[in-house]
Amino acid sequence: MRIAVDAMGGDNAPTAVVEGAVLAAREYQVEVLLVGQQELIKEHLSNYNYETGKIEVIHASQVVLMDESATEAVRRKRDSSIAVAARLLKSGDADAMVSAGNTAAALATTRVILGKLKGLARPAIATVFPNAIDFTVLLDVGANAGGCGPEHLLQFAVMGAVYAMDVMGKKNPKVGLLSVGEEKSKGSAITLDAFPLLEQSSINFVGNVEGKDITNGNTDVVVCDGFVGNVILKFAEGIGEMIFDLIKEELAQSRLAKLGMFLALPALKRFKARVDYQEYGGAPLLGINGGCIIGHGKSNAYAIKNAVRVASEFVSHRVNEHIEQYLRTMREI
Amino acid sequence: MRIAVDAMGGDNAPTAVVEGAVLAAREYQVEVLLVGQQELIKEHLSNYNYETGKIEVIHASQVVLMDESATEAVRRKRDSSIAVAARLLKSGDADAMVSAGNTAAALATTRVILGKLKGLARPAIATVFPNAIDFTVLLDVGANAGGCGPEHLLQFAVMGAVYAMDVMGKKNPKVGLLSVGEEKSKGSAITLDAFPLLEQSSINFVGNVEGKDITNGNTDVVVCDGFVGNVILKFAEGIGEMIFDLIKEELAQSRLAKLGMFLALPALKRFKARVDYQEYGGAPLLGINGGCIIGHGKSNAYAIKNAVRVASEFVSHRVNEHIEQYLRTMREI
Repeated sequence: MRIAVDAMGGDNAPTAVVEGAVLAAREYQVEVLLVGQQELIKEHLSNYNYETGKIEVIHASQVVLMDESATEAVRRKRDSSIAVAARLLKSGDADAMVSAGNTAAALATTRVILGKLKGLARPAIATVFPNAIDFTVLLDVGANAGGCGPEHLLQFAVMGAVYAMDVMGKKNPKVGLLSVGEEKSKGSAITLDAFPLLEQSSINFVGNVEGKDITNGNTDVVVCDGFVGNVILKFAEGIGEMIFDLIKEELAQSRLAKLGMFLALPALKRFKARVDYQEYGGAPLLGINGGCIIGHGKSNAYAIKNAVRVASEFVSHRVNEHIEQYLRTMREI
Repeated sequence: MRIAVDAMGGDNAPTAVVEGAVLAAREYQVEVLLVGQQELIKEHLSNYNYETGKIEVIHASQVVLMDESATEAVRRKRDSSIAVAARLLKSGDADAMVSAGNTAAALATTRVILGKLKGLARPAIATVFPNAIDFTVLLDVGANAGGCGPEHLLQFAVMGAVYAMDVMGKKNPKVGLLSVGEEKSKGSAITLDAFPLLEQSSINFVGNVEGKDITNGNTDVVVCDGFVGNVILKFAEGIGEMIFDLIKEELAQSRLAKLGMFLALPALKRFKARVDYQEYGGAPLLGINGGCIIGHGKSNAYAIKNAVRVASEFVSHRVNEHIEQYLRTMREI
């Protein structure tokens, strides 16, 4: 299997991306195509040992910046590393792609180059949140930040459920509709209309869920509007940072406390590993006609490696085929 | 000053509420009117010493349950402790009220009995979130869970700013509009329309903010739709519980780690105090013609005591008068 990796995407590119690609090539049954500025990538690659033939460099002359407008990126940067990677998928030279770069640009670029899945109205960005037991898929977290209709929420539910089954190994995943109360009568105009659509579908719909259900492990897939999902995603990052900073500040005031934390460090590291985004390897763009995994902008080599693994699972478990199948079945009913 | 306290509201009522009222009566220059089932309250009160005349018991024959529908509570429980407390405000026998009971019922009941502030379209529930430096006011967190229009968001901004100034002592508080990106062009249909309204107002509007800005201390007041705010509020509670549970789980696996955490305990307790809702004493119902502070359902005595303090500050700083003034000035411009 061949995974195209955007070597220029992310805050730590290309250093962390090249290292992550090498780690992935060593550990997994994949061939990595590193896409970006050839000379630069080769220079970084020369620091590592890897099996010949497991890493290939594909040149792309342009780079999409992290804060660049997605529309501009699509229009003016046709030879960006993202665009070149997407065209490798289109031509069949790669099976999936990974980018830790500009998410909006990746979405817009892959949408133009690869198109949408058959029967799908709108792609969505899914994110995998740690919960009290394992993981919850939350979508949409930003592909439709201007808002979505009830029928889009239904399709997000389908995509989230397939992803949870195929990549996360959940049998008959429980899908909840994010709202302000469990009662059917509670919610916004959009969730109220989406509720019966989900209820009538063949999805394992558990009804309305609340913000706390994203983390308590009761629900495998939580479906929401791209505006709400994006706010939650960024709030979660912010709250994590705040907790870390405040604890550090309080610990700094006492040597004994610092010693204590040192003793507790192995346990705290295990905790961190359970909630760390770097472990579960990125957010899938669902609904694009091709597997595309978006890494966090701050991805280190380890996170990139995991994103390559997720991309390969996305392909081997045939997520897109299953989504199209599901959508077709729903239309036929 | 006289604060009516709903003795029957909350998971730990009346025990924790009565104790909290006693603590408040001892510590603050307030007289507490404990509203609810007379015999029961008096029985609990008999466990404490307090200055005669600082606590009075007012009988209310009915109790609104935590999960009862707000409409039902308003219609069928006219003698509930919430309704009796609200009527004490209406008649001038109390200056403000505190309830840790059913939030929706408190909102609906006070709205019917006390009415809205002059010039205000919709009340909002504000919550005070800990951030990296001090606190951020987030509103609406659920009074308008079905959604709000741009003009409502503008009024929420006014109410939040006045609350931050009067009760939290912030000078010229920075007000942000919760959205999916800092750029003016990013957001939902409602936030896009609200942006120019906020920009043209005399509020210290800092533009769009993201989920992370609720906790990083950059913004004093964050304004959002009641649906979004409610989801965030419950997500924050969920994430706090999850972190606590996962850390406990990992610590349980090692004696050394447990010892370490014991040594770090004073620092961790200081941290907890900074992020604990019990410290900052409840969520104000803003826009109601009367001061009403809602305590968390899980409030202990300490949280109730703090809610009484916040209620007294709400009155002494004349929050409602200032909100009406602000709204009037805006209409005149």
